[in-house]
Order: sequence, then structure tokens, then C-alpha cells
Amino acid sequence: MLAFATVSRNLDLTAPDRPERAPETARPHRPGEPVAQERSIVLIGLPGAGKSAIGRRLAARMGLPFRDADVEIEAAAGLPITEIFARYGEPHFRDGERRVIARLLAGPPLVLATGGGAFMDPATRRAVTASGAMSVWLRARAPTLLRRVAGRDHRPMFHGRDPAAVLDGLITARHPIYTEAELIVDCTDEPPETTTRRVMAAIGNHAEAERLTVPLSQPYDILVGGNLLARAGALLAPLLPSRRVVVIADANVASRHGLSLRAGLEEGGLTILAEIVVPPGEATKSFPSYAEVTERVLAAGADRRTTVIALGGGVVGDLAGFVAATTLRGLAFVQVPTTLLAQVDSSVGGKTGINLKSGKNLVGAFHQPKLVLADTATLATLPARELRAGWAEVAKHGLLDGPLWDWCEANGPAAIAGDPAALRHAVLASCKLKGAVVAADEREEAPDGGRALLNLGHTFGHAIEAECGYDGSLLHGEAVAIGLVLAAALSTRLGHAEAGLPARVARHVASVGLRARIVDMPRPFSTERLMARMRSDKKAREGKMRFILLRGPGQAFTSSDVPEDAVESLLRDAGCGA
Amino acid sequence: MLAFATVSRNLDLTAPDRPERAPETARPHRPGEPVAQERSIVLIGLPGAGKSAIGRRLAARMGLPFRDADVEIEAAAGLPITEIFARYGEPHFRDGERRVIARLLAGPPLVLATGGGAFMDPATRRAVTASGAMSVWLRARAPTLLRRVAGRDHRPMFHGRDPAAVLDGLITARHPIYTEAELIVDCTDEPPETTTRRVMAAIGNHAEAERLTVPLSQPYDILVGGNLLARAGALLAPLLPSRRVVVIADANVASRHGLSLRAGLEEGGLTILAEIVVPPGEATKSFPSYAEVTERVLAAGADRRTTVIALGGGVVGDLAGFVAATTLRGLAFVQVPTTLLAQVDSSVGGKTGINLKSGKNLVGAFHQPKLVLADTATLATLPARELRAGWAEVAKHGLLDGPLWDWCEANGPAAIAGDPAALRHAVLASCKLKGAVVAADEREEAPDGGRALLNLGHTFGHAIEAECGYDGSLLHGEAVAIGLVLAAALSTRLGHAEAGLPARVARHVASVGLRARIVDMPRPFSTERLMARMRSDKKAREGKMRFILLRGPGQAFTSSDVPEDAVESLLRDAGCGA
Repeated sequence: MLAFATVSRNLDLTAPDRPERAPETARPHRPGEPVAQERSIVLIGLPGAGKSAIGRRLAARMGLPFRDADVEIEAAAGLPITEIFARYGEPHFRDGERRVIARLLAGPPLVLATGGGAFMDPATRRAVTASGAMSVWLRARAPTLLRRVAGRDHRPMFHGRDPAAVLDGLITARHPIYTEAELIVDCTDEPPETTTRRVMAAIGNHAEAERLTVPLSQPYDILVGGNLLARAGALLAPLLPSRRVVVIADANVASRHGLSLRAGLEEGGLTILAEIVVPPGEATKSFPSYAEVTERVLAAGADRRTTVIALGGGVVGDLAGFVAATTLRGLAFVQVPTTLLAQVDSSVGGKTGINLKSGKNLVGAFHQPKLVLADTATLATLPARELRAGWAEVAKHGLLDGPLWDWCEANGPAAIAGDPAALRHAVLASCKLKGAVVAADEREEAPDGGRALLNLGHTFGHAIEAECGYDGSLLHGEAVAIGLVLAAALSTRLGHAEAGLPARVARHVASVGLRARIVDMPRPFSTERLMARMRSDKKAREGKMRFILLRGPGQAFTSSDVPEDAVESLLRDAGCGA
Repeated sequence: MLAFATVSRNLDLTAPDRPERAPETARPHRPGEPVAQERSIVLIGLPGAGKSAIGRRLAARMGLPFRDADVEIEAAAGLPITEIFARYGEPHFRDGERRVIARLLAGPPLVLATGGGAFMDPATRRAVTASGAMSVWLRARAPTLLRRVAGRDHRPMFHGRDPAAVLDGLITARHPIYTEAELIVDCTDEPPETTTRRVMAAIGNHAEAERLTVPLSQPYDILVGGNLLARAGALLAPLLPSRRVVVIADANVASRHGLSLRAGLEEGGLTILAEIVVPPGEATKSFPSYAEVTERVLAAGADRRTTVIALGGGVVGDLAGFVAATTLRGLAFVQVPTTLLAQVDSSVGGKTGINLKSGKNLVGAFHQPKLVLADTATLATLPARELRAGWAEVAKHGLLDGPLWDWCEANGPAAIAGDPAALRHAVLASCKLKGAVVAADEREEAPDGGRALLNLGHTFGHAIEAECGYDGSLLHGEAVAIGLVLAAALSTRLGHAEAGLPARVARHVASVGLRARIVDMPRPFSTERLMARMRSDKKAREGKMRFILLRGPGQAFTSSDVPEDAVESLLRDAGCGA
């Protein structure tokens, strides 16, 4: 059974507590399965959306009482709503409505259909949120609504008027506010039973978004949860300098998630000046792409108050972030990561940049986002190889953290198999760990430790990746996975870690389907060339290689005095050629 | 006569006082003219540099007493120096030496020759500075020194040793410290009378560097004065993360000042990884140049602790600053501006960037330097047209400031004719004004006023410049000059400024040899095209043009609600076509 969080928690990254364990029983809701519903459901939507029809069926299936707020108000007032409006005016009615809704939600869980105007009232919205209830917007398009209200709706608002015009007006006024609902379900002309089943499934699979604050000089939040693309506009609008945005996505992600994000942004009242689609893959992080995207952002009419939104993985986030950092000397920036790698790593920390021929990320800027929306639902559409590659960074965070490493060993295979609760926990725990590290060393200036620790496995990983030429044959995470095993082996050889650590790391890496050994790669590597790559790594200092070593999980440290021959013999013993 | 400042003042930009007036009598020293020397002169240099020979002649010409510190020490101790060394050791000798030097400098002005080791002692250097004396390094190359010491120097340090080897050792050890001298004069094999005349001239033309602090979140200093290139290494070394630097200059400036800067940096102990020379002209501020320079900085072996030094005008400063801001996500940066425009404007404020086809400076970053070295001696080699163009920004600062405008009207023509004191004052006062504006609005985020005020004349100027296509036919300052007159005219038309202001601005602009009217330009302009340029200016907000208007000199304000037809009719009346 799914345990629903009852209140949204704001995890403070400055607190020393460890990432919480995911509930052992967490797994996705399966269709038809009963749900133990601990929260009330508040249905919102326009006339004709089906709040009563769906609400009654939903309540019956969930074993909860059903109430219609308008009926309760009329009962409480002893007057029809039209009369309350006529005698006392709307403010009086809204006040009573809010009190009735709050009273109903204060009791045991129920399904509550509300009048179309109820959720428009800010005080009522606050009362719904404060009660712990889940607001669900039954969203329908104008033609569907029109067919349902035509001829059978007796509300005064339609009297003697063109129903289509009335509905258009309501859509314009109310949809931007309705997007603040916690859950949005699209309703079509399908039978009410079908819609009810879909609403049930959406509620079952929904877990409330968690909010982490990254306490930098300009603090910002990371939201982790499902259904965030659809709510993007409502979530972003209060944070941005203006309502004008530019979306940058790669072609794959644009085709999968572009429409959802567009709908979510527009329903929140944002204006999309341009959707700029770039080719997928590391080659896009280049000077020419950077120049072209920048020119297009400006050609779309961006001014200094325009926000750049990155939709996609690490490549798009790094490129779009660098464009945002440097266009008009700095535009507001939002990350909407859609890969596991981006959600657990690259979207957090403010590093942006592009690659040069001589190496990755050699040009860039620190540019922190206004918000990170990590919509974990997007992970369900991710190719398995990308999901696995992203896991390498989760495992890295595990090794840096300690307890998270134990969790990874226990839950990694389930997460890679698609368990949403496990993925969600991986994202949350990773963001929490990385956010805390970044907050302590925003611009990577700490002489030891600090952000450099996040480079665990990366001195080797970057060298392996560079040898492959960023041609897509090897994903970043695939290189990091091998790098983590090598870092553990180096730590053991130098006497810092116990003998069993390298095998333990290798076992975990293999358990999520990643290659653990450099000899398993489909191409040979030269020790000498890897050494040269590591010497010129941008984290090297005045020619000295820098490694992150482990005493054990949760005990990492930086070292600039690893003897070169120890690294060389390690690579040779790992199967690299001369 | 030149009035020498007696102490280095650290002007606090946060203080509300106005830029001080330059002395009315300030003008350059002419050869042969006597100098009223109010400061003692302390001569430093290696054995054979001529400290005594030049010092005696200098003292005679200046009407000052001459003293030799070694002679005074022997007199005070009643022992030869070799004996003091032998009996009491070097620390004891240095202590006595410092006390003797301090005593001599506490009296009336004199010329003092010091032993070669005196200035190496940090406490003695501090004592010289604290006394208000001017330290002058008589710098000679090894062959010159060798000829002078060979066979006639009886100092124990040469006894039984190879004089060339001894001198090489001394050069290596002492030159990096000698660069801390306030003034450096190169001595060749010429007759001592010639050297003496050159030292006199250098002292006469030298005015102590003034230090302004720009009080940003990371405060930094602007040094304004002569002879700064030669002292660059000594001035920079304590401020940089490492001794490794990359110099970026345009071809013209590199040929004029590259060697001086190289000598100054190397003598201060800095290592120049690369001197990157770019073509002069606005076309260099492009994506391709930016990419190429960045690749070259990295290919030279720059790491995160390497500093980028921009030597040249605004183009090089903007490009090199952007390279520094983005290479390895941010390298330390130093500005060595060599044009009037760069010294009074572009090197201060941290704006860096490049141009796009659609406009200037559309891509960039805020990246503050560690230090700005405005060596006013470099202005003497500037082509007259560039000096005039730079004056437009001085005039702009004058209009923003008020009192500085009166000073500009009185002193502009003299400055443009090359008067070093007037130029120095223009640089100082401009940096002071701009530094204060920037400090109050570091990232140009103030809704009104703030940094935007520095855009006075630039809304018009940028449009005029853009129409000319940045092909070098029109310099930035030449466009700004016309823009200033148009801004004054617009202010008057809108009723903000008195009727006489536009003519007054035009008169000043013309008095320094700049074109004041758009019809004086060698090409026609279209009102419609200029209007379109201004609408898409990056300072426009959501399509509304933004102007800086004047109520009078010292009374500027920002306005986003200037009627478009007022601007249009102004341009038509100024002689622009349809």
C-alpha cells in the first residue's frame, strides 16, 4: 500500500540529518487495486468538467463519503445559492463557502466537489492546502465542456448568453489559477467510469512534491515529484522577473515532454517567446551551438527580464544555463531536468558550460537557477541505458554520504527497473546531498574537500570519456561507473580503504547493469594516454593530478599527492595497454 | 610648476565629495626647466647602476643636498661597513641602515643613494614609503653593470669571484623587489649627464599613482598614474592566486606597450604563459575570436589559478574579460587599459562581452578585475582620433557629475592636446564617478537611475554606431559625442533642461575636435532605421525605448516614457532622412 505524505515538508539542507529511508513497502499503484486514501480529495474544474459525476464514483470506489460544497452551503444557509448572491453579494457568499469547505475538510477523509469559483478565492485555496487535502483539477477542453453544459445547465451565468463565449471567458480567467492544483487530470468525452478510473490511477501514483531549499547566497528550491511539468507555469510565475520565457530542449525530450511543459507554462500565464530545439548529444555543448542558441534567444525578442528554461538532460541544462548566464550578461534560469543524471546531479549546483576540443566543460559560468523542477514522472519515458548511466551519480552520492550507499545497494536494481518510489528517493537524497555540498562551497574555492568531493570517480571517468571522444559511444555515467570502481581500488591500494571496498563497488555497479571494469569496454585503452588526460584535467593544480579517495562509504577526501606510479600500475593491472 | 602630491591618497568612492579639481597650473615638465622638488629622492639599484654618480649630479641640478647612505652609516658607526658586517652580522647592519635612512628622510628634501641591499629589507622599504620620499630604481642590464664594476669595485661580494656570476645572482634576487620602486629609469652606457637629464625628466613628469577603491562585494583598486606598466609585476603579485598569467593585447598595443608590460611582469616575478595578440578593432569582439582566444589560453596551460591580463583598449578589455569570466568557469582578471576610453570607462565596472550581428555587447558577463592599472603615460602614444573619441565618455561623466562638466569645458582642449596633468585628472575623476555609480548598482538591477545613467547619450550613440556596422568608420566615442548632444536636445524639447544646454554640449564636443551633429557625419542616416535600432536596444524594456535625460549638468535621470514621436521629430530636425 502507498503511504501518502500528509504535509509537504521543506527539507532544510543545512540540517545535519541523513536522507530519510524510502518506505520499504513503496511501489507504484496498480490499476484496480484499492487505495487506502488518507487525504481528502477536493475536485475543482469548470462547469461541465464532471466534478459531481466523477466525484460520486470516485468516493464510492475509495470508500469515502462524497459531498458537494454548493449543496452544503445551501443547506447551511437555508437558501439557494442564487438567493445568497442576490441578497448578500459575492464576498459574503465566498466567505461562507470557505468556512463550509474548511469545516468539511477538517473531518475524516472525503471526496469534495467544489463550485467553479471556489478555488479562485485565494483564502479558500490556502484553506484547502492547510487542511492537507489533495486538490485535483478535472481539466477539460472547451468543446467537451460546451457539449455538457449546453441546454442542461441552469446556472444564472449562462442565462440568455452564448454558452461558448461564457466558457471561453471562464477558461481565460480560471485556468491560470486552477494550475495551482496539486494534481491535474485531463477529461475527454470518454464515459465517466473511464475518467474515474484514470483519476483513481493518477491519485494512486501521485506523491506530493517535496521541496528542498539550496541555501546559497541566492537560495533556490528544488521540487521533486510527479506532475510538475503540468504545473510549471503556476510554480514559476511568482519567481520570475517577467512572464516571458524561452524554452531550450533537445529534439528527443521536446518530442516527449515539450507539449506538456508548453501547456503547463501557458496555463500558468507565461508567454513562450521561443522553443529552441537542439540536437541531442554531447556534441551540442559546443561553441557553434552556444552561439546559435544565443542568437536565437535574442532573435525571439528576449530582454533582460526574460527567463531561460532548460528542458532535458545534462547537455541541455549545461548549454542553456551558459546561454542564460551570458545573454545580456545574465538572464534568469530554470532547470526542468528530465533524465536521472540531470535530476540527481547536473541540474543542481549552478555549473553551466560547454566543451572544447581539448576537454569537457572548459568554458562556462556558475549560474544558479531560480527553481529546479525535477518531475520524476519523466523518468518513466527514459531509455533504460540513460537511466542506468544516471545511476552512476546516485551511487557516487551514496559513497560520499554513507547511509545512502547502503540504500543504493538495497534498492538500486528496483530503481533501475522503474520503481517510481525508489527513483524519487534517489533523486531526493541525491539533491539533498549535492545541495549541501554546493552550499558549503558555491564556487568550488575550498582548498580541500568541498565541491571537489563531487568529483569522486571523475578523474578516471573524464579521462575515459575524453578518450572515447564524446561521440555518444560512451555515456558520462558509464565512464563514471568505471571511475568509481577505480577510485575505490586506488583508495585500497594506497591503504586508505579496506580490501573489500573495490569489489563491493563493482558489485553494485554491475547490479544496476553498468560495466564495472575498463576491460569490459568494447575498446582498448592506453595507460599512457589516460595518464596524460588526467594530468591535464581542469581540476589538476599546476600539473598535479587530483583524486578523491575513500576511507569507506561516507568518508571521502581530496588528495593531490597520489604517486603517479600507483595510478599507472592500477590502470595496467585493470587491463589497460601501454 | 608641478605640485607633487606628498602622500598617496586612497580616495574612498563611498564618500560623497566631488572629484577634486586639478591644480590650475598643472602642465607637463619641459626639459631643462628647474623643478621645485618637495620630496626626497631615494636612488636604488645594483652595484654599477650609478647611484652615486647620478645622484650627485641630480642633487646639484635640483638644488638639493646629496647623501650616500653607506657613508652616513660608516660615519654613525665609526666603522667601515665590512667591519660592521664582520663584527655584528647583517641583521644588525640592516637595522642600523634603516635607522640612518629614516633619519635622513625625516629632514628636508635630499637625494639619497642607498646600498644595493637596503631596499631589499622590507622594513626599510616601508620606511622609505612612510617618509613620503620617491624611490627611483636606476635599472641597468647586466653587460652595462659588468663594465662598470669590472676591476674597480672593491666590495667584498666580488672578491675572488666571477663578477658576471655575482651580478646574475643579484639580478635574479633583487630585480623582483626593485620593481616596487615608485619610478623606474633605464640606464644605458650613455654619459652620466645624459642619464641625469633623463632621470630629471622622468621625475618631473612623474606624478605619484593615485589609488581608488571600488567598494563592491569584492572590492578592488584602480591605480592611476605614470610608470605603472614597468611596475605591473610588483603591483600585481600580492593580489593574484598564482604567479602564472596570460596577457591578451591587440596588435597595435602589443607593439607599443607589450615589451614594457612583459618586463614589468617578469621583473615582479610573474610567469607569462602566453601573450595572445588579436587584431585591433571592434570585429575582434566576436564569437569566433572569443572561441579562439579561449582555446589559446587553455592551450598555453592555464589552470584555475591563472590570471588573464587585458592590455589595450575597450575591445581587448571586453573580450579578454569575457574569456576570463568563462574559462574554467572564471579566472582572475586584470585590466591594463591603454586608451583614454578604456581608462575612463570600459575598464571600470566589470562589464565584459562580445558583439552579435544583431547588436553590441549582447553576450557577456559581469566579471570584476582584481586590479585596474591605468598607466596614463600610455596615452601619450595614442592616435589623436582615439584620444578625442575617449573624451566623449569623459564629457558624459562630466554631464552626470556637474562640477566635472565645468572642468571639462575649461580643460578639455588642453587634455586633447596632450596635457598629462589634465588627462590624469580626467581619468581619475571619471573612474571616481563611474566607480561610485557601479558600486551602488553592481549588476545593473536598479529599476531607475543606477548604472543605467552611464548610458547617457548611448541610446542614440549605439543606434548610430550599429547603422555604421562597426566597420571602424566610426569610433564608439564619436557616436556617443553626437548622442550626448541629441540627449541634451531631447531633454530640452521635453521641457526638462534649459534651452541653452544642447548648444553648450555641442560647443564642448566641437572644442575637443569631435563632430557634434549627425549631419556632419560623412554618411546619411534614416530616422526610421535609427528608431528601429533604439527599440531593439538591449536596455529597452519590453519594447519600450529607455533614455537618460538631463535637467542640467549633474542632474540626470532615466525615463521609459519618452513619446516616440518626440524622438522621431528630433532626429528629423537634426537632419536624418525618412
